[in-house]
Amino acid sequence: MAKGLPKRSEDYSAWYNELVKKADLAENSPVRGCMVIKPYGFAIWEKMQQTLDKMFKDTGHSNAYFPLFIPKSYLSREADHVEGFAKECAVVTHYRLKNAEDGSGVVVDPDAKLEEELIVRPTSETVIWSTYKNWIQSHRDLPLLLNQWANVVRWEMRTRLFLRTAEFLWQEGHTAHATKGEAIKETETMLHVYAKFAEEFMSMPVVRGVKTESERFAGAEETYCIEALMQDGKALQAGTSHFLGQNFAKAFDVTFSDKNNQLQHVWGTSWGVSTRLMGALIMAHSDDEGLVLPPKLAPIQVVIVPIYKGEEQLAKISEKVAGIKSELEARGISVKFDDRDTLRPGFKFADWEMKGVPVRVAIGARDLENNTVEIARRDTKEKQSYSLDNVESVIADLLDQIQENIFHKALMFRDDNITKVESYEEFKEVLETKGGFISAHWDGTPETEEKIQEETKATIRCIPLENEEEEGTCIYSGKPSTQRVLFAKAY
Amino acid sequence: MAKGLPKRSEDYSAWYNELVKKADLAENSPVRGCMVIKPYGFAIWEKMQQTLDKMFKDTGHSNAYFPLFIPKSYLSREADHVEGFAKECAVVTHYRLKNAEDGSGVVVDPDAKLEEELIVRPTSETVIWSTYKNWIQSHRDLPLLLNQWANVVRWEMRTRLFLRTAEFLWQEGHTAHATKGEAIKETETMLHVYAKFAEEFMSMPVVRGVKTESERFAGAEETYCIEALMQDGKALQAGTSHFLGQNFAKAFDVTFSDKNNQLQHVWGTSWGVSTRLMGALIMAHSDDEGLVLPPKLAPIQVVIVPIYKGEEQLAKISEKVAGIKSELEARGISVKFDDRDTLRPGFKFADWEMKGVPVRVAIGARDLENNTVEIARRDTKEKQSYSLDNVESVIADLLDQIQENIFHKALMFRDDNITKVESYEEFKEVLETKGGFISAHWDGTPETEEKIQEETKATIRCIPLENEEEEGTCIYSGKPSTQRVLFAKAY
Repeated sequence: MAKGLPKRSEDYSAWYNELVKKADLAENSPVRGCMVIKPYGFAIWEKMQQTLDKMFKDTGHSNAYFPLFIPKSYLSREADHVEGFAKECAVVTHYRLKNAEDGSGVVVDPDAKLEEELIVRPTSETVIWSTYKNWIQSHRDLPLLLNQWANVVRWEMRTRLFLRTAEFLWQEGHTAHATKGEAIKETETMLHVYAKFAEEFMSMPVVRGVKTESERFAGAEETYCIEALMQDGKALQAGTSHFLGQNFAKAFDVTFSDKNNQLQHVWGTSWGVSTRLMGALIMAHSDDEGLVLPPKLAPIQVVIVPIYKGEEQLAKISEKVAGIKSELEARGISVKFDDRDTLRPGFKFADWEMKGVPVRVAIGARDLENNTVEIARRDTKEKQSYSLDNVESVIADLLDQIQENIFHKALMFRDDNITKVESYEEFKEVLETKGGFISAHWDGTPETEEKIQEETKATIRCIPLENEEEEGTCIYSGKPSTQRVLFAKAY
Repeated sequence: MAKGLPKRSEDYSAWYNELVKKADLAENSPVRGCMVIKPYGFAIWEKMQQTLDKMFKDTGHSNAYFPLFIPKSYLSREADHVEGFAKECAVVTHYRLKNAEDGSGVVVDPDAKLEEELIVRPTSETVIWSTYKNWIQSHRDLPLLLNQWANVVRWEMRTRLFLRTAEFLWQEGHTAHATKGEAIKETETMLHVYAKFAEEFMSMPVVRGVKTESERFAGAEETYCIEALMQDGKALQAGTSHFLGQNFAKAFDVTFSDKNNQLQHVWGTSWGVSTRLMGALIMAHSDDEGLVLPPKLAPIQVVIVPIYKGEEQLAKISEKVAGIKSELEARGISVKFDDRDTLRPGFKFADWEMKGVPVRVAIGARDLENNTVEIARRDTKEKQSYSLDNVESVIADLLDQIQENIFHKALMFRDDNITKVESYEEFKEVLETKGGFISAHWDGTPETEEKIQEETKATIRCIPLENEEEEGTCIYSGKPSTQRVLFAKAY
């Protein structure tokens, strides 16, 4: 049935790679580290984009577009930023090719060397803040609440489809504010937008928190994040929202005159999610038979498979299906009638299971006689016969149930996999045997954080926002601590 | 009133540049030839995208995403293609920067040189056909009907916002077919989609035609195009659809086994429109007071400006406006209530005129007493008082009328500016005094075409699809000709 999908329990990593391939989501391109997002995978990403875009607009943001290229010198203007990105960027040095003299093809034309090299944007703070300098003069120009959907490039050496690719698609919000308080509020608002999207649309529970200093975005004063737990017990950072302080405003000299006519530096934020969310979505719910998609993000929510012998039966079934399909579509439900005539129903069932379609309807000649259909849910694999009379309501309800069920299943799994530990021994044992998030006391120093990472490969995923204060001692150094943080091995 | 917009009649080019700037559409970025698309400009582009995307999907296409980078050797695989694009491409040669030894910032790390240079895609035929090779084996895999929305880079030396920029946004459709006939049909279908979009949404009449051999896309067997006429009498190519024959299939060895189990090369098409359409839209309708937008693409279709003295009057007006606004929004009409309290109504009127909002509603205290509003249309500048009772219907009707009126105005202008000429003397005179499209006999040779271009800067824009056969003699060579073609100076 699983057409060669490895089992999660045996080789999670191979399972993921094969699933991405067999569900027609993406593949590696001829260009090292860059992916091709296939139509079915892209349709899921489009649904994510549309949903997020509406959420951004509902919170007052507009879209704009800034250049792909960043002058090399811009990257250096903010000291942490260049440290963070210079080591993995694609550099454009020439603007023309010419025919090779030996006729072997084309070569770089040495006469077409750029005066200043251009970096393919790894993120756009620098080019955007250099533009904001001209757009912002007065407090009346603030806040400036922009977003862009774009491709970015970070030259990663070890890549995996969706999770880590040299080029990826993302959105990056960049906002400018008159006060520190407003900027922090914006950072938090967008974190909550991301969390809401993850939980309500992806059905993926997340922990909201802040990063430690060493895990912060290069150039930020505070990085907020949402962290999800995958089925193999590893964490995945699903979105980040950065409070930039006045760092980029100072680097690019962006000032405004406030209500008292005093010149001040602007406060900034930036926030982003990327096609990495596709990797999270795949890993959060899918099983050994293939993808499991939350109905709200499924490009095809219902597939209808006819079970027939001969043209006449097919014609009768098709007529019935046409009615069901148009009624479902009138409710905004997307339906695929799979009447491919060269494939057996069993093959089609497995195919749509692999692709994660939430609801499958099978309808045969006997069903027509009995006025019934067989409906299978992808999430629980339950099959049941229903009357055709109100099948559209049944399906609509089922889609809601599936959306909720996979969220709760993921939430139970996540909560079962947050383990409190009191010692480093316990920490290491839980990490090796169970994985998941480990809630432990930490002395707050980067040194301890680094040592734990070196020794165990676990990192501090975040300091949860809703943390309770709790007196304790650091599991590593034994120094006093006031709160627990979440450790995990991570993607 | 026009806040310094140059007059079209005096300096069309300066008028365009200032309009793009003053209507907040776009600006030049710090990176040579690359633009920043500002929120208001991007909102128009988003409307274009959404409309076109729906049209593509309605004609059976899906979106996907292919890499930004193309290995240098791929470009050379199709001989015409490399000739067309190698001379103006951004070349990535390195993947890392490092700190300069003299502490002056970052420099390219010579140890991080790529084995093979990467080209930032100027168009994606090569990387897509190299991928199609793996996706297409059988006639059952065809047709393959894909599109991508992406950024592309062509290193233009002389750039103008929207019309010609080094980086631009576009969509590129790439389809694969089993037969020549199907591929040609697809090429034509997409040309008609573009024409329909231009005429019904942009209100911009276009001539549908085919390019001469010398104006064809590099790698195509036939290039279909839509050509529009701008108010200064220059033509603008607004979209192209290419029949690629088997050129890219042969270059990348893309074959399929047909129904008789014979191996054949696949037939291809590609088609695209870009942010250049923004330039066309701006130039097609706008006037000396600013932008004129067709309602179907206007991000704000109706602006409501309160005329008031004091808070109390404003409160009463605001209450009334809230009702009108929500009723208009229920009809799917986008409305902005401009209650900025630091600006006078006259300033607001000029501001929204500059931004091309189709309908302006002014409402004051006396209007409330009389149960009226004053409505101004952007296209004709007519102002009229209407009863408040059914103002929503009046506005909805007005928007339809404006959409139609600006199309007809542009159509009349276009038709008045297609001039038939019978001699080269007449040709040159019309070109200098009147401009526009010149319909003339041509002997069909690239040599004549080139000489006319050298001597007059006019090019053959297209051979119209609906051309009638007509015996004649070439205006330049005197040789026999069977049909007229359209010449013009062009953007």
